[in-house]
Amino acid sequence: MDFLVRIDTSDAYELPLDERNDLIERERVRGRELMAEGVLRHFWRLPGRRANIGIWTAPDADALEEALTSLPIWPYADIEVTALATHPMTRQMAAVRP
Amino acid sequence: MDFLVRIDTSDAYELPLDERNDLIERERVRGRELMAEGVLRHFWRLPGRRANIGIWTAPDADALEEALTSLPIWPYADIEVTALATHPMTRQMAAVRP
Amino acid sequence: MDFLVRIDTSDAYELPLDERNDLIERERVRGRELMAEGVLRHFWRLPGRRANIGIWTAPDADALEEALTSLPIWPYADIEVTALATHPMTRQMAAVRP
Amino acid sequence: MDFLVRIDTSDAYELPLDERNDLIERERVRGRELMAEGVLRHFWRLPGRRANIGIWTAPDADALEEALTSLPIWPYADIEVTALATHPMTRQMAAVRP
Amino acid sequence: MDFLVRIDTSDAYELPLDERNDLIERERVRGRELMAEGVLRHFWRLPGRRANIGIWTAPDADALEEALTSLPIWPYADIEVTALATHPMTRQMAAVRP
Amino acid sequence: MDFLVRIDTSDAYELPLDERNDLIERERVRGRELMAEGVLRHFWRLPGRRANIGIWTAPDADALEEALTSLPIWPYADIEVTALATHPMTRQMAAVRP
Amino acid sequence: MDFLVRIDTSDAYELPLDERNDLIERERVRGRELMAEGVLRHFWRLPGRRANIGIWTAPDADALEEALTSLPIWPYADIEVTALATHPMTRQMAAVRP
Amino acid sequence: MDFLVRIDTSDAYELPLDERNDLIERERVRGRELMAEGVLRHFWRLPGRRANIGIWTAPDADALEEALTSLPIWPYADIEVTALATHPMTRQMAAVRP
Amino acid sequence: MDFLVRIDTSDAYELPLDERNDLIERERVRGRELMAEGVLRHFWRLPGRRANIGIWTAPDADALEEALTSLPIWPYADIEVTALATHPMTRQMAAVRP
Amino acid sequence: MDFLVRIDTSDAYELPLDERNDLIERERVRGRELMAEGVLRHFWRLPGRRANIGIWTAPDADALEEALTSLPIWPYADIEVTALATHPMTRQMAAVRP
Repeated sequence: MDFLVRIDTSDAYELPLDERNDLIERERVRGRELMAEGVLRHFWRLPGRRANIGIWTAPDADALEEALTSLPIWPYADIEVTALATHPMTRQMAAVRP
Repeated sequence: MDFLVRIDTSDAYELPLDERNDLIERERVRGRELMAEGVLRHFWRLPGRRANIGIWTAPDADALEEALTSLPIWPYADIEVTALATHPMTRQMAAVRP
Repeated sequence: MDFLVRIDTSDAYELPLDERNDLIERERVRGRELMAEGVLRHFWRLPGRRANIGIWTAPDADALEEALTSLPIWPYADIEVTALATHPMTRQMAAVRP
Repeated sequence: MDFLVRIDTSDAYELPLDERNDLIERERVRGRELMAEGVLRHFWRLPGRRANIGIWTAPDADALEEALTSLPIWPYADIEVTALATHPMTRQMAAVRP
Repeated sequence: MDFLVRIDTSDAYELPLDERNDLIERERVRGRELMAEGVLRHFWRLPGRRANIGIWTAPDADALEEALTSLPIWPYADIEVTALATHPMTRQMAAVRP
Repeated sequence: MDFLVRIDTSDAYELPLDERNDLIERERVRGRELMAEGVLRHFWRLPGRRANIGIWTAPDADALEEALTSLPIWPYADIEVTALATHPMTRQMAAVRP
Repeated sequence: MDFLVRIDTSDAYELPLDERNDLIERERVRGRELMAEGVLRHFWRLPGRRANIGIWTAPDADALEEALTSLPIWPYADIEVTALATHPMTRQMAAVRP
Repeated sequence: MDFLVRIDTSDAYELPLDERNDLIERERVRGRELMAEGVLRHFWRLPGRRANIGIWTAPDADALEEALTSLPIWPYADIEVTALATHPMTRQMAAVRP
Repeated sequence: MDFLVRIDTSDAYELPLDERNDLIERERVRGRELMAEGVLRHFWRLPGRRANIGIWTAPDADALEEALTSLPIWPYADIEVTALATHPMTRQMAAVRP
Repeated sequence: MDFLVRIDTSDAYELPLDERNDLIERERVRGRELMAEGVLRHFWRLPGRRANIGIWTAPDADALEEALTSLPIWPYADIEVTALATHPMTRQMAAVRP
């Protein structure tokens, strides 16, 4: 199932610069892994904000929780999760495609 | 997985009395079915309000959506869903029980 | 550019049943067109709610406004739009893919 | 009676690491005791958040207050309590069960 | 235990005048009964608003729910309930009084 | 006249322990005086929160302000005041009592 | 004592035109009386809104409630009251004036 | 001085179609006049919403109130006004321009 | 024109005591000047809060901004400004007074 | 396309004075560049607040994000972005102008 996930990382900007840079580097590595695994499907910057919004895919909330707490930035992040249900029209479109 | 679901049924109180009574009766029948199926696990009245709050169990958000839209009161209800993840302590307790 | 768009259609449920059914049918037709044109890229039901959330793609806000007001449900819909910026990591991933 | 209790522990993450680890360990011990006593009945993680939501059972608000302030994390926790009333349908189901 | 209860009766002002007057009269009768029973302990008008705020006493949330839904105005009222715990200082004061 | 007063003392929990204990002791002394003077009439803990809610009686807002700023905890407290008006039914009940 | 009072009269705009005009005329008469009595001291339009904000003076909340419910527009008005305390600097200025 | 003005016209969409069309036509005429007078300086649609946001210029709040209440749509509009002050940098830029 | 201005000075209470006392003294001096100049017309304490609410008079928002930023407490203050328009009834009353 | 951008710079006021002055100076230089490039079109102070509100013009959200993150104050700023669509009346006016 899919989740809409908003991650605000403002608090990480209060870390000392070298600690923050190290955190960002580790965050990128983990982010790429989650993208490669198909968990982190799409994500965007919210313009002007120290936050991103993304579509995450996981079998259930436990798997999503595991993915989110694996982020190095998790202890500093404010995360909001919204469960998403498949829209009937999306299902119909998928059904008729070859 | 579990979901915390808050259902506000205030709008149903604007229906004519016989229509409302019929709706409540059909709602009870469907509610009992969902309880028997283990989908609607626990639920409570919010004292003084025309609303209830409950713990629902479904494989994913699609199955929950199907259950919620099957409620006769759905067209009149304001429903808020929060996805829940298993707490590590609950998992440990379950593991040590015979 | 991409936009996160939340469309609440609760007010349409106050229409007489045949008017509502006609509206839903026309909405589906227009929705399929927008999906085919690549404007409406992904969308989901918010479980339990008479609302959907989607990712829309349009050159700018004028083109998005044109797409949204072309929806038959527009006069009854409560629509919230959030502009999205490309995330640097998405850009990097796209760059290294063949 | 039952209570819905939301406990946000974000502030505890600002403690030095050893102090935090000690706190978490003591919190687990007290949590297990409250579960064994039947006060803390069910609880879940809110995915992505440093918070949990649970169903607590206590004779009244005084007994709940005593249980909540006995948590080692209490001085750092932001706690929201909602009183719950038995739903008539739950009562009926219990009555017909053997 | 005690509860802080805020009752907003604005919706009742949309009833036809004679229906509203009849409702107010029945509400007063029920209110006096609840005061005599010691359930409705203190209550006040919120100046300028069609609302009151009161201290209610009931063994638990079920008994409070029963009292609140017995109000003739209940179907038109927006009611907010806050559970209250005894303050340690109030307990001490009571203990030393003859 | 009466006032509903909500006092959140969370910020006092950031003081060093001995400073906080001293503050609490002085707060209790002043609280008892205000209770003896009939200014602080009733008050309760909000279960789980570092806050109390009370009914205060003072001739007007100036006298209430004087009482509230006399609290040792005032510089650390977040205080919300709601003016209350006598409810007509309370007045009638008082009139018929011997 | 003084009160800050915000009166939103939007609902009155849903009345039939002649009923509304009659209401406005009676409201003006009552408003002038309250100004003459020194109860309604200053008031302003909130630009663009069907609302006004004013400084009202009354011995206590009971007297204010009496004045506000005497407004012909009261059944249609949404009224918010904030109790105000004399500022020490205002008191000093008044003391030194001849 | 300048004002940021947000005008939500959703309520006008509940009028009968011919009444609404007539209102929109009159609104356009008045809007063009206010643009010609330099009162309505810039304005935009909020994409997807039945609302616009604009920069209005008027000597003071009285003149703005006069302009806003002259809009045919005023009785149906929800209007929010924010007073704006000249930014020091804007003033400097203007000073150095020929 | 008049403005409703709410000034919350809570942050100033986090200054060292002598710095805070010095600030308060300078604030009083500046406050008296603004009162003498007719800019700060009326102001009140919000009972229990470290905040005041006042009626300020200035030709426009630029002049108000200049007055507010001249307050020594400005860097620590949270200030909310609402533009006020003359009420037609106030104008009429003024017109008929000798 | 145009964006309404609100920038709150309160956090920068917690920097040491010389660091803050340096930041403000660099901010002014960058601000002038963005004005010269036609990106930052209009902006105003919100009276009394450490915040400004402006109209920014950029091809899309990516270009806006690039402009906003180029601001020296960005790491300390709280920025809210609203996408704006051309209003049909503005388009008509532009069309008829020579």
